[in-house]
Amino acid sequence: MTKVNVYVTLRESVVDPQGIATQDALHKLGFNEVSNVRIGRLIELELSGTNAEIETRVNEMCDALLVNKVIENYSFEIGEVAGK
Amino acid sequence: MTKVNVYVTLRESVVDPQGIATQDALHKLGFNEVSNVRIGRLIELELSGTNAEIETRVNEMCDALLVNKVIENYSFEIGEVAGK
Repeated sequence: MTKVNVYVTLRESVVDPQGIATQDALHKLGFNEVSNVRIGRLIELELSGTNAEIETRVNEMCDALLVNKVIENYSFEIGEVAGK
Repeated sequence: MTKVNVYVTLRESVVDPQGIATQDALHKLGFNEVSNVRIGRLIELELSGTNAEIETRVNEMCDALLVNKVIENYSFEIGEVAGK
């Protein structure tokens, strides 16, 4: 099984209320130097196959379910082989 | 300004209902080869300082607000300098 990390982020042009709230809270806590806070999703999954097959399947999964491509971008990293 | 990506994941021992639901949905869509789906957060932020300062500050932010260390782990990546 190969581990894959999928990173899903809001597109630049989309307002991120969760990011704004987090940034405000950080400022209130004294972390005034922080800016451009954006919150995205990290989806970890495991699947088998060659790297090329995995790439195709992960793109299909992102299209079908994991990513709302109207407002989100994604990228992914094919990691090390997990376990046996 | 330096970009930092903070990756927040649930601890191994903590049940992840969102991950289970996502995995079930993927299986129903025909992606039967997928297992161990876990959903975490990707927090992108920008701040200034040397790498050592940034490391200290990001750890402080994770302790203070960004991460619930009872149930979550985190790691972060200090990226390229953004803009000027």
